[in-house]
Amino acid sequence: MFSLNSNYLKLKAGYLFPEIARRVKEFLEAHPEAATDLIRCGIGDVTEPLPRAVCDAMHSAVDEMGIRETFRGYGPEQGYDFLRKLIAKHDYQFRGVTVAEDEIFISDGSKCDGANILDILGKNNRIAVMDPVYPVYVDTNVMAGRTGNMQDDGSYEGITYLECNHENGFVPSLPQEKVDIIYLCYPNNPTGAVASREALTRWVEYARSHHSLILFDAAYEAFIQDPDIPHSIYEIPGARECALELRSFSKKGGFTGVRCAFTVVPKELLARTAQGGQASLHPLWNRRMTTAFNGVSYITQRGAAALYSEEGQAQVQSLITHYMGNAALLREAVIAAGLTVYGGTNAPYLWVQSPLGEKSWETFDRMLHDHHIVVTPGSGFGSAGEGYFRISAFNSRDNVLEVAKRLSLR
Amino acid sequence: MFSLNSNYLKLKAGYLFPEIARRVKEFLEAHPEAATDLIRCGIGDVTEPLPRAVCDAMHSAVDEMGIRETFRGYGPEQGYDFLRKLIAKHDYQFRGVTVAEDEIFISDGSKCDGANILDILGKNNRIAVMDPVYPVYVDTNVMAGRTGNMQDDGSYEGITYLECNHENGFVPSLPQEKVDIIYLCYPNNPTGAVASREALTRWVEYARSHHSLILFDAAYEAFIQDPDIPHSIYEIPGARECALELRSFSKKGGFTGVRCAFTVVPKELLARTAQGGQASLHPLWNRRMTTAFNGVSYITQRGAAALYSEEGQAQVQSLITHYMGNAALLREAVIAAGLTVYGGTNAPYLWVQSPLGEKSWETFDRMLHDHHIVVTPGSGFGSAGEGYFRISAFNSRDNVLEVAKRLSLR
Repeated sequence: MFSLNSNYLKLKAGYLFPEIARRVKEFLEAHPEAATDLIRCGIGDVTEPLPRAVCDAMHSAVDEMGIRETFRGYGPEQGYDFLRKLIAKHDYQFRGVTVAEDEIFISDGSKCDGANILDILGKNNRIAVMDPVYPVYVDTNVMAGRTGNMQDDGSYEGITYLECNHENGFVPSLPQEKVDIIYLCYPNNPTGAVASREALTRWVEYARSHHSLILFDAAYEAFIQDPDIPHSIYEIPGARECALELRSFSKKGGFTGVRCAFTVVPKELLARTAQGGQASLHPLWNRRMTTAFNGVSYITQRGAAALYSEEGQAQVQSLITHYMGNAALLREAVIAAGLTVYGGTNAPYLWVQSPLGEKSWETFDRMLHDHHIVVTPGSGFGSAGEGYFRISAFNSRDNVLEVAKRLSLR
Repeated sequence: MFSLNSNYLKLKAGYLFPEIARRVKEFLEAHPEAATDLIRCGIGDVTEPLPRAVCDAMHSAVDEMGIRETFRGYGPEQGYDFLRKLIAKHDYQFRGVTVAEDEIFISDGSKCDGANILDILGKNNRIAVMDPVYPVYVDTNVMAGRTGNMQDDGSYEGITYLECNHENGFVPSLPQEKVDIIYLCYPNNPTGAVASREALTRWVEYARSHHSLILFDAAYEAFIQDPDIPHSIYEIPGARECALELRSFSKKGGFTGVRCAFTVVPKELLARTAQGGQASLHPLWNRRMTTAFNGVSYITQRGAAALYSEEGQAQVQSLITHYMGNAALLREAVIAAGLTVYGGTNAPYLWVQSPLGEKSWETFDRMLHDHHIVVTPGSGFGSAGEGYFRISAFNSRDNVLEVAKRLSLR
């Protein structure tokens, strides 16, 4: 009989968000009157509409596609030049960083890129993730067979977990053991922490001296307010030889339902072959993109390009201002409620300590029952998240003001 | 040093289309006057604009996304219910076939699905492909490590090639050796052949008795004109226990630049686990979609749904009529030129025998030099394609009439 990939059977059942949904459902069944005033601060999905410049560009692109003379069929699998050029210029050149247009690969999402990039990497690489961690980094490696079984605490054998806590500012210390591939996400989901130039330099030096690869997830870079914080790993000298960077239009441009992202693969980035030689990852990723992907919708790419127009940039800025304004209001409210909070100043997430001795899920239940507010329990992101909860600033202003009011009445 | 996936290094350099491009470029450099009248009948990309119903639906969806009240962020990773329902009804129920809505997974393309589905299958499955073959089936298995090295004739060790020729009507005989996973593509690219109900029944019986999996690629089903030819593998009794089906809006709806497709995974479809048990593939594919993918653009899905409206169906029909009208004209012209032709009656591809003793690339060069027509040499699809060339009916009517005229002057 043909076989399935049994690594999938090692995955724990999707626990965090289904469990949140189950508890919310149970609560609403017992308290139907709460349905009208329940506020969800859990999932990190945007709430504000697409920028006008994006809609205008997509309308034009739809019109082009409706006329034989301007219709476009298959586009380049790596993305249209018009978008790659804008990214190279605005996201990199303007920050003093050199990234060539053909090192930028346009995709339909960072989640896809983060999973698919693993295809071009060897099976025996040792993976290191931050704890707490975005679960997709771990799950995709479980699926690809780079881990052993799940252990009682929910972690997987064979993965190195790098603890992030308030003592290290949620930027992990360098590992004791040698690791091959390191996931770093800054600004961080879920902690809202950022990594300083010095912290990133330590990691780049580690990666270069150990010939490791950094997978740098910069999906939230647009939310950075502090001018000293790097937006790209390539702002660190030497990073082109040891890092891939994942970027997304999801949060910055409100593209969670539109789907556009990109990955940067510098040509200098070498890896070991099974024959003991070295080869560049760039042609491998190009090969994967051309063989197993067929490019992003032309209409979507025109929409993404519009984010770089003068009008589009101003509209992105007002989205950022809106969400970071939410974050500031939420921070104030949480602090006024006597809680200790991290994040929320350069990232759209607040990482809040549960009151002393309370576990993450206890806080979750209390917030749900007492305040009709849904948060995300920190332990859902890994054992180092126990005793924390995440509040998302992706919300309407009205909801945020109401959350602040309810917290003040505790 | 971290390692790369060395299986990628087994891949031959993308040979077919780059080599076509190289020869065309060389020819045009030597004969710049031919640039204006060169007609490309090579790549299978659509030429006609998007149906009006699709453009209208996408305009409305863009408008919805621009307003807070109707904005949509992350959608279901498996696709919106409104589209899954339409597919279940129109593509299956109306043909007397039962496919549940939650067995339909919406994606951004069949190329992606065909590659990604391999993730949920075991590494040691023996793969069988038709020869000639759409190269992506082979290359994605090479990348995933299911083959040995490339041999001198361009085939890979460890893959079973099933010869398709005019004697078997381009539907392969059952293999002598046991194979685990069989790719079948009907209507076929590149041969334009279709598989009768009897032929598909033989394959379903083989798969059921050998516990094999059929990956049925039905990307061209909308081009079938003969009412006796099945559109779906699920029209064959027992197929739900042994087959996955890949479908696409690319050719039928002109979506090659818009990107929308779907895969059907029946819940009855079981596979062997490493522990020797059996498990359903459906939850594994659901897990891959939710973990490594984030759904297709809402705007795109609204566009795809519009193909099922009354207006949309009529517009799809006129696209099919256009391309199949091209195919009929091309068939006539090729036959009048004294050549033997297959396909082109239930598929948008014509599979033409080169004149006696001429190799595929020799025909390619002759067509380019004498007629300024670019075709696809059959040997590029595998050794059984030697001595054939493919003509695509995806073209404007003017180009097709001009091709017919030039062939008559040979």
